[in-house]
Parts: sequence; structure tokens; C-alpha cells
Amino acid sequence: MVVTLRLPSLTSLFSPSISVRYPALLRPHRQLRPLPSSARFSAQSTASETGNRADSQKSRVQDRAVTPRSKNFNAWYLDVIESAELADYGPVRGTMVIRPYGYAIWEAIQDYLNAKFKETGHSNMYFPQFIPYSFIEKEASHVEGFSPELAVVTIGGGKELEEKLVVRPTSETIVNHMFTQWIHSYRDLPLMINQWANVTRWEMRTKPFVRTLEFLWQEGHTAHATPEEAEKEAIQMIEVYIKFAYEQTAIPVIAGRKSKVETFAGADRTYTIEAMMGDRKALQAGTSHNLGQNFSRAFSTQFTDENGQREHVWQTSWAISTRFVGGIIMTHGDDTGLMLPPRIAPVQVVIVPIWKSDTDRQGVISAASSVKEVLQIAGIRVKLDDTEQKTPGWKFNFWEMKGVPLRIEIGPRDVSSHSVVISRRDVPGKQGKVFGISMEPEILMAYVKDKLDEVQSSLLERATSFRDSNIVDVTSYDELKVAISEGKWARGPWSASDADELKVKEETGATIRCFPFDQPQGGVQTCLMTGSPAEEVAIFAKSY
Amino acid sequence: MVVTLRLPSLTSLFSPSISVRYPALLRPHRQLRPLPSSARFSAQSTASETGNRADSQKSRVQDRAVTPRSKNFNAWYLDVIESAELADYGPVRGTMVIRPYGYAIWEAIQDYLNAKFKETGHSNMYFPQFIPYSFIEKEASHVEGFSPELAVVTIGGGKELEEKLVVRPTSETIVNHMFTQWIHSYRDLPLMINQWANVTRWEMRTKPFVRTLEFLWQEGHTAHATPEEAEKEAIQMIEVYIKFAYEQTAIPVIAGRKSKVETFAGADRTYTIEAMMGDRKALQAGTSHNLGQNFSRAFSTQFTDENGQREHVWQTSWAISTRFVGGIIMTHGDDTGLMLPPRIAPVQVVIVPIWKSDTDRQGVISAASSVKEVLQIAGIRVKLDDTEQKTPGWKFNFWEMKGVPLRIEIGPRDVSSHSVVISRRDVPGKQGKVFGISMEPEILMAYVKDKLDEVQSSLLERATSFRDSNIVDVTSYDELKVAISEGKWARGPWSASDADELKVKEETGATIRCFPFDQPQGGVQTCLMTGSPAEEVAIFAKSY
Repeated sequence: MVVTLRLPSLTSLFSPSISVRYPALLRPHRQLRPLPSSARFSAQSTASETGNRADSQKSRVQDRAVTPRSKNFNAWYLDVIESAELADYGPVRGTMVIRPYGYAIWEAIQDYLNAKFKETGHSNMYFPQFIPYSFIEKEASHVEGFSPELAVVTIGGGKELEEKLVVRPTSETIVNHMFTQWIHSYRDLPLMINQWANVTRWEMRTKPFVRTLEFLWQEGHTAHATPEEAEKEAIQMIEVYIKFAYEQTAIPVIAGRKSKVETFAGADRTYTIEAMMGDRKALQAGTSHNLGQNFSRAFSTQFTDENGQREHVWQTSWAISTRFVGGIIMTHGDDTGLMLPPRIAPVQVVIVPIWKSDTDRQGVISAASSVKEVLQIAGIRVKLDDTEQKTPGWKFNFWEMKGVPLRIEIGPRDVSSHSVVISRRDVPGKQGKVFGISMEPEILMAYVKDKLDEVQSSLLERATSFRDSNIVDVTSYDELKVAISEGKWARGPWSASDADELKVKEETGATIRCFPFDQPQGGVQTCLMTGSPAEEVAIFAKSY
Repeated sequence: MVVTLRLPSLTSLFSPSISVRYPALLRPHRQLRPLPSSARFSAQSTASETGNRADSQKSRVQDRAVTPRSKNFNAWYLDVIESAELADYGPVRGTMVIRPYGYAIWEAIQDYLNAKFKETGHSNMYFPQFIPYSFIEKEASHVEGFSPELAVVTIGGGKELEEKLVVRPTSETIVNHMFTQWIHSYRDLPLMINQWANVTRWEMRTKPFVRTLEFLWQEGHTAHATPEEAEKEAIQMIEVYIKFAYEQTAIPVIAGRKSKVETFAGADRTYTIEAMMGDRKALQAGTSHNLGQNFSRAFSTQFTDENGQREHVWQTSWAISTRFVGGIIMTHGDDTGLMLPPRIAPVQVVIVPIWKSDTDRQGVISAASSVKEVLQIAGIRVKLDDTEQKTPGWKFNFWEMKGVPLRIEIGPRDVSSHSVVISRRDVPGKQGKVFGISMEPEILMAYVKDKLDEVQSSLLERATSFRDSNIVDVTSYDELKVAISEGKWARGPWSASDADELKVKEETGATIRCFPFDQPQGGVQTCLMTGSPAEEVAIFAKSY
């Protein structure tokens, strides 16, 4: 089933080749200096597959090949991150440098979410990242969850500190410390804020974007006068995330409630969006927590209600991080590299001008520039790659690796016919190529916008059918084990104990990803583990 | 001279009063709980000046008064930060929580600069904040400058770390570590990046926005093939800052070169913009460093030039931080509170509807809403304050404290005459008030836009004449001492030694703020200290 949904591999179109024209520019560090293997993402640092493509271009040079996705998903992932210049390792174990192209994807995520947070009534602000150690200890399950992962500052200004400082792993404690000073009466509620910040968690097993020692995120924090309001807010924000995932990133997440075992340390309820990656492992891509009164009790965050009574506030927190970039890579990428959904692609359209003789050059470049201007005016993020040092074939491969949704090719014949050739990144080869699209601004603009929408929808459709063909409904633990062993997600009725849940994890490696919001019709079923009545189905999967 | 430029104090218009209608909402923490004095900004935590204003409003309540600026500039500053809800202290000494209104000013700064950085060819990215201790030690003057201010992580994941980690005080070292891996040939240059990040410096004497243990900033880092290009870049970026300061924040900074003593730890040359605060102390508001080859030599950041020779790159770095928010407060604020330049004001226009009877209410609110919509469509940041719990007078004071440039008042008579009243924040009382501005969308939009431009220019003019009347040209050390003792800036020819410069600092408290770009005509002069020839004048001042 996976096979039918995986894209035909472009590498099959390449024959081995020797002609690498500009290798020093592309993989210079591989040539100029020895690299400590630990300092590189790629498990394939000696790979140098190159090829010529029997395409409209004569000599098409491919000197940055990635490990095929089907061969080794993890190596493929690391190769794509390196070759598409998304990130690099930092000097400290488990840290990551987010390079401009990777950061631009994060900026697109920020732009969208930031606007949504403001529309839903939240203000941005900033809390210090140093938290007194004692704060972390105030909420019992919070300290249990986070203390193994803390980075601790013990020296400041050359002196041993009296109280050790935690570098924030999340901000509930310091937020509550401040909320306690700002909230007094019901008139101060709801208090709804967000911050964009870096956070630190001392993870042992790291992976770029997915799990790094330091990462970037937004964390929303709200306080309300009633539990109903807090619940409504927690649900509202997971809905913002769901919409974002589907509409912007073309990732058909499954949303639901976490099991007690998987609930955030300090929350009453955690809602989550779970995404199926290309290797069918689950990625927790965003969470929204109903914190109840756990932190408000620990920090005495109280308000005077309309009857003059002192009450603890009801709270939520919710977050999406740079991990989401990893989710985009692992949902849509293929053997050719990254594949970006148009709405969050830093470059939506790349224009590659093609000329052989100097006499053609001027006309081609000038037409390409006009096309660029037309698209820019239409609000499309467009890049004209007119460098002279690379061949068109090299550029094709380069921008395919970078996942740019559409490519416009303009050669001398296109200039004569006042038209362009447009290729889709998501449909390889001739199938994805349309010739003779008019350069008339009105026509071209409309065509490109339509095509971008088409690519966006197509990515979502493809990911959705991949997801659906890899979720198995199970009614017994044996069926669950089979499904998990085949790498799939198992969905089945569940009302068993926490101990049973942990047993499943130990025996299969799978955890409850969520009790999905979308539940089957038809009432009470039978728990797949115990045979007792079960009111809900849960989804089990291996996860990142 | 100061006096003539200071705004007439509004507090003189207030008579002492008892009627404080909603004090609990405004300064609730003062009433509801005892506060550790160290945890509050305000030196005036027991002050509760209130007053009635003989204005068009009957009962105008002022329950958040600030210390008069002329009385105690520092107390005034802290009061404004508290009352205008810009920031609060964090739980760790010297840390600051940036509250939504203060953060919105920072967001306006970010929006402008971020666009300019991209226009000038820079890409955003992100470097980890943890830097191996050994990196800091690689550049000799860098370690000397920064080691006393470092916060150090020694424990991670519950274990003592083998190598201690520095929480970044600035990123030149880690940037160079990465640049060394990315730069190989002249074709990789220039490499021009920027990051928005938090940084930590273990400062002993802190002050909100101006100097905090952790602050937010942008730091640009570039690498070039020639010293000329690096110099051009350093100059280009200080020019971006100058334009930003003048045009967006109405702060008439003086730009120039730092003396050797004041140059950034690790730079060959530091360019700076120096702003004169309301108390005439200087604030270093932004810097751009030509780093020469200091870091590239320390980190072996080399490239192969067009002739095949290996060379060290030439670099720059440049930064503006949340300190700038402090500069805006201390440049424009007055006894009434904050005064924001329209271009960076989170709220440019506040609309206050005024009604007495319920019969008037509907018409007034509906007119106010239409006005709001008209201005919003015109791209103006407008707030309609239609809460029922506060009197119009209270709202006037509140939004004046918040520094909103224009206020629109709409009462029943205005509704009848289809007009509004507009008041300028920068011109107190009746002088700043214009009656009978038509509500016709075209007319109103144009009028408000004009007025906002007028306020913007007027703030810059006022600050410029304040600045110019407080800079004294001096020709001798005695004259310099007099000028500094009067709280002014001294400008005079200088070619003396570093030791002489330090002597001035010791004896007067003043430092060389810069050798201004804008130098007097007429060639070589006589050094005010030594009598030797001096090619430049320097500006001396006490500073933050």
C-alpha cells in the first residue's frame, strides 16, 4: 500500500555520470576539508551519486543526490536537510543551526499563526528564560516530567549563584508567578497571551527539527474565570492548529485527546494533533492543554469573582514548535528531496531562463524578468535564477531538491511564442509539465495561482490517502500487534488501565497517540485489551 | 534651557481629589497584596495622586499619576513603565517581563528593521544559544570584554557537563564556527545573515529595557572578501539604524565612530548611534562593528580567492535591542506619561465615545464604530474604548499615559453635527484640540493621516532642538568639565591618549560617545586636552 502511494523515483531516470561541473560550490566542505562524522547530518557523507538526465536539457547535472527514501528513511531525512540547506548541527551536541531556507519555512509558520492568535484575542509578550529552580518544584507532576531534562545555570557573572536557574523548558511556572501579580478580579479575566521563544530540553536522542536540545516555538498561556471557558479555549486553539495543519501545510493530522499517561506534566487534559510521517511513524505536531487549576493552586493565582469570593483561575497552554518543519519534510518529501506546500513555501515559483547563444540571452533574461515582475505583483513568492555559473539542468535539480512547487522555464522559442513552460514539483517528468502558457499577465497570473492551489490540494489529498490506507481498525490486542509490526497505526476500542497502556508500549513500541475527536458511530464497543465496555477508540502508533 | 523645552506639566491642571472610582482595577496589587519593594519598578509605590480636571468632561479621574519627570527622572521612568504597562520585573534579579503594550512597540521596531534587513540582502536564521566555553576564549579581546558578564550552564539532564556552556552574550564566536563550515570560495561571499534572539549578560546594575540580564535583539553577521566591502557594510547598517531612529522613532541620534577604548570587544571599528535622553544622558542605541579579521583569524574562517589564494574573511556585526524601547520612553515622555511617535505606536488613534443618557448611547457608539472602521480601512491602528466601567475622563488619562498620539472624542452633539473632536497627545490642553472635524470618510481619513504626520515631525523637531541646545562646543578640558557638570554634552577637538580618555571618565563621569560623522569644517584644530593637533571633534557625555 505504501508503495502505490510513494512517488515514482526520479533517480531511475539518471544514468551514472562523471561530469560534475561545479562541485566545489555545492559540496565544498566535502572536498576542501575532512569532516568529523558526528558533525554532519548525513549518514551518506561519502555518497556522490551523479547523473545525466534524458530530458529537454542536454547536460543535466545532478551532484547532490539523497539516499532514496524507501531505502533508509532516516538517512533520506538527514540528507534532505543537508542538501536543501535547511539546517546544520551546532557545536554543542543536539543543538541545531537553522539555516535561511529552513528559517524561512518557520517564518511562514509564524506569520500565519501569529495573525490567528491575534484574531482570537491573544497578545504577544515576553517572559525571561531563567526560572528559579524552586518554581519548577512547585507543581508536583510538572517537576516529575521536566526535571530530567533541565539545563541549569549555576554561575553568573563569575560567581556561584545562590539559587540555581533553570533555562526554561516551558513557561507555565514563570507565567503563573506573573499572572498572580496581574490578576485580581474577574474583570482581569480572561488573560490571553502568547510568546515566541526558544526553549531548552536536555534530550538524549536528538534529531534535527524533530527533537533538539534547544528549539523555537510559540507558547500560549491563558487564564479564565470558569472551567468551561478554559476548556473552550483549549479546544479553540487545537482547532487553530488543525486548520493550520490542513490548510497551510497540507498535513492531514488526526486530532484528539491524549491518554492520561501521555498528558502534559501538569495538565488535566491534553489535546493533540498527530501527523503520519512518510515512514508511518506518528509525529506529535502541536498540543493544547487544559491545565485546570494545577498551576494556579501551586502559585496561588487567584481572582475575586462577581460575588466577592476568591477563586483560583482556570488555565490553558498550547504550543507549536520548529518540530513542525520536520513534519513538513517527512510528510511530503520524496527521493528528489523536499516538497513544499505552496502556502508555506519560501519560494513558490522559480523561473529558470534557458539560452545557448549570447544572442538569445538578452531576450530570454528580459522575458524572464517581466514574468517575475508580473508574478511578484500578484503576491506570488517568486525567484528568478539567472546565475550564469550553473546549467539549466543543474538549476532544475537544485530547486526540485529545495521543494519549490512550480518551475517556469523560458527559452528562446518561448520568447518567440510569448509563452512559458510550467512544471509541477509534485508530478515528476512530462506528466507534470505544461507547454505554451501565455505570458499575458492576466492569463499567466491566473494560471499560476490556480496551479499553486492545485498543488496545495494535491499534496493534502495524497497525504490523506496515504494516512487512511495505513490506519487499521483492530478489535483485539493480537490484531493491534500485527498492525504495529507492519508499521501501521492501529485504531481500536480502549478502556484499559494505564498499566495495560504501558504494557502495549513495552511489547510493541507503540503508544496511544490520542483518542480521536472523530469517533465511530454506534455507541459502546468492547475494549480490545480487556473485553470490558469501551466508549472510545484510541489510536496506537510508534512515534517520534 | 531644559525648562523651555520641557512640556508644560499637566499635573498643574489637577486639583487634589478624593473621587477614585475604579482604583482596584488600576493599581490592584497595591491594594490587594503587600509587595516586596524590590519586586516593583516604581519608586512611588505609595503615591496615589488623584485629581479632577476642569475640562469638557465633568468628573475626570486621574488615579495613576507618575512622579514628575523634572523631579526625579529615574522614578518617572520606572513609574511610566509600570503605569503604561510596558514591563514588569521577572522573578530573577535584573530580568524583565515585557508586557503586551511594551512588546507591541518592539514588534513595530522588528517589522520595520526586518524589512530593511531583507531589502539590503540579509537572510534570517537561527544559531543555538549555548556556546562552548572554549569558543569565547578564542578571541583575546572578546573574552576580556565578555567573561565577567557570562551566565554559565554547568548541569544538563541532571549531570555535570564536561564542557561548561555559555548562554550567548552575543554570537560572533558561534557564527564564525559555522561560517568556517559554509564558506569555502569567494563565490560563497558575501554571506549576510541576521537573527532575532535573546541574549544574556550578567549585569550588576540593571534598569528595565536599558540594561537587563536577558534582552531581545537582532544581531546581523556578515562575511566579505575584502576589507572595503566589510567597511561598506558596517556603514550601510549604521545608516539603516540612523534612518530608523529619525524616521520611525523621531529620535535625532548622533552617529559616529567609537573611540578605541569604547570599541566593541573584538572589533576594529565600532559605529554607533547615540541618543540624548530627557535627562540629557546619552543612550547608545545601536552599533555596527567592522570586525576586520579578528574572528576569522581566531576561527580560521577562510576562503579561496579568485587567484586560488586562501584568505581570512572580513566581517561585520550590528545590533539593535529592546533597549531602544527605553530610548523612546526617555526621549519623548512627559509628566503625563508615555508619548509615542505615530509610526511605532501600537495604537495611533484612540476613540473615546461620550454619552450621559442611555438614549444618546446608541447613536454615539454607532458613530464611533463607523469612525473606527473608516480609519482601520485607511490602515491606521485604531482602538475604540467603549467600555462602560470607566468615565471618559478616566479614559483620556489612561490613553495619554499610554502615549497614544491622537484621541478622537465623539459625543451626542458631535453625532448631530456629523463631526468629531481630535486631540493631540503632544500638545496638551485646548491648544492641541480641534473641534468640528467632519466624519466624512475622505475628509476624516486625510485629516487624521496629516495629523499623525504632524505629530511625528513635531516630536522629531522638539527632540532635535532639545538635543542641540544641550550640546556645548568646548576647546579646553575646563570647559568640558563645566559642560558635563551642567548635565550637557561636550563636543571638542580630541587627539589625546586612551589614558587621558579614562582620566576624563574618572574625573567627570563622562565618556567619549563618538567621533561624530558630522565634523566641523575648517581642518585641523587643537586637542582640548593636550593642545596637539586634532583632526576630529569627539562628543563627551554621561551615559546609560
